[in-house]
Amino acid sequence: MRSLGTCRHALLWVAVGLSLACARLALAPADPLPSWNSGPVKASIMDFVRRVTMAGGAEFVPPTARIAIFDNDGTLWSEQPIYFQFAFALDRVRALAPKHPEWKTRQPFKAVLDGDLKTLAASGEKGLVELLIATHTGMTTDEFAQTVVEWLATARHPRFQRPYTDLVYQPMLELLAYLRGNGFKTYIVSGGTVEFMRVWTERSYGIPPEQVVGTTFVTQFQTRKDGRPALMRQPKLEFLNDGPGKPVAINKFVGRRPILAFGNSDGDHQMLQWTAAGGGPRFMGLVHHTDGDREWAYDRTSHIGRLDKALDEALAKGWTVVDMKRDWKVIYPFQR
Amino acid sequence: MRSLGTCRHALLWVAVGLSLACARLALAPADPLPSWNSGPVKASIMDFVRRVTMAGGAEFVPPTARIAIFDNDGTLWSEQPIYFQFAFALDRVRALAPKHPEWKTRQPFKAVLDGDLKTLAASGEKGLVELLIATHTGMTTDEFAQTVVEWLATARHPRFQRPYTDLVYQPMLELLAYLRGNGFKTYIVSGGTVEFMRVWTERSYGIPPEQVVGTTFVTQFQTRKDGRPALMRQPKLEFLNDGPGKPVAINKFVGRRPILAFGNSDGDHQMLQWTAAGGGPRFMGLVHHTDGDREWAYDRTSHIGRLDKALDEALAKGWTVVDMKRDWKVIYPFQR
Repeated sequence: MRSLGTCRHALLWVAVGLSLACARLALAPADPLPSWNSGPVKASIMDFVRRVTMAGGAEFVPPTARIAIFDNDGTLWSEQPIYFQFAFALDRVRALAPKHPEWKTRQPFKAVLDGDLKTLAASGEKGLVELLIATHTGMTTDEFAQTVVEWLATARHPRFQRPYTDLVYQPMLELLAYLRGNGFKTYIVSGGTVEFMRVWTERSYGIPPEQVVGTTFVTQFQTRKDGRPALMRQPKLEFLNDGPGKPVAINKFVGRRPILAFGNSDGDHQMLQWTAAGGGPRFMGLVHHTDGDREWAYDRTSHIGRLDKALDEALAKGWTVVDMKRDWKVIYPFQR
Repeated sequence: MRSLGTCRHALLWVAVGLSLACARLALAPADPLPSWNSGPVKASIMDFVRRVTMAGGAEFVPPTARIAIFDNDGTLWSEQPIYFQFAFALDRVRALAPKHPEWKTRQPFKAVLDGDLKTLAASGEKGLVELLIATHTGMTTDEFAQTVVEWLATARHPRFQRPYTDLVYQPMLELLAYLRGNGFKTYIVSGGTVEFMRVWTERSYGIPPEQVVGTTFVTQFQTRKDGRPALMRQPKLEFLNDGPGKPVAINKFVGRRPILAFGNSDGDHQMLQWTAAGGGPRFMGLVHHTDGDREWAYDRTSHIGRLDKALDEALAKGWTVVDMKRDWKVIYPFQR
């Protein structure tokens, strides 16, 4: 053992010496957030990460407690002119219509098939849930995932004529990677249904299925005729992951309070309050949609992604508010 | 940049040369499962890990898909003479009794206070849920966690006169560490309530809160009088994580099918079936309690941890069945 130890010792010192020599030649570190304009918002992010990762510092947080939570719609990708998952549901209604002749006369299906958005909007939350149940349940979990895969491959966003997954925010991709590079575990906590997201979040955001939390339908374990087990999606909403549901879901799925949370609407308000109420260093962020040219501009009166009360609290308490127009050099990866 | 590249190159070759020299002096690798006796069970575990981790092999599984699921009671720690969480509930009834004079005459509380185990057992699942609601709800999540911490620090197991967390299985601790060392993500999926476990699983098993799935009570977000938000535990069972509930919960919390699952009772049967039904290499394991001297011996007729149908399927399909008496050198860490 002594000769092994001596040998390792020698290796260590040679490596240290050469590393120091190499370090002197290295360039300054690259900007981890190149799509963020310099200013107080970018500074607040980098300052927070520096403080919680500085070993021996007063605000050091151990890596296991570096939990970062992100809303999805309007925070990591766009949500206009309609939530992208709603576009999926409408396309599924059209695809399934031949098997459902009764939809020609039954609302809200008739409105979808007629392209009658006014009647569709008037059907409200009840109509929305009916559409979700008709398009998101009644099949196995594997079958549902397959329909999402196929839709993403073919559907195009009406304004940009690109796959919906192209409309993720480049600055937020950089932020996710920057946080993970600093030992954070990144989660999505979204009002969207969880199995719609899990199909693509790993490839698009680097966030694996087990770190995606969302709205759920009841699922049931069944043994099929061939003896194989399956999970069947039942026509019953189980948990709506929005507003006060978000801190509840964070507690249920993550089991500890995040130290960083990012949202964009009043649906994220309680999640931000829950994050803010913990001890030690905290980061609460909001994406404010201020760029009608490159993306969309909306806040207090929007039907989608309304940002009103959470904005008031953010401004009053000094949470970080990203002004998309001012703070982001580009919006989408394809614009680089 | 050229001098930096050249320097790094030199460093690399020096390091490689010294590493090879050191490797020649190294001893054979240590046994990762020293508390497991040699035999077909230990071989089946190590063979499975070798096959799924061999880069370029036909059965290679990428690290992100190496999901390993473990039941807790009877699989990672003992569950006799009563489930340890049930012992916690009984102790809480005794501690809370002064505030509940009505319990002196009301069942099943009277039976607990009188030490009348026969009447208590006769109260069945309804009585159990009543006890759980009285002792596990009506407080904030933080307050509940604190009662678990305090109980674990003072309660002693009646047979071993040791803290309950001493009664974890040494061979399973080695298995968890071995799997994680080979890129697996280890989860608990237990019939126990999730917030009872999360307090201690990271320290005892190296499994962080976000990888613990269990039975849940409804929780509600509230703003307290001082304006601070809190999560209040409500007197309503939300999800019973047992039997067919386990694959449902795995799908909901993990979002992908495990490649390895370990249980010890019929409550783990569907979880093992769900694991077995996936494609590619699979490992299904059962801990069979066969050691009445060092632990307990029970299976087909036990009220706690009954193992009957799952044992039949395991034997018929060649799943791995651990014979505790034959396969484990020691049971608990304190016996080493």
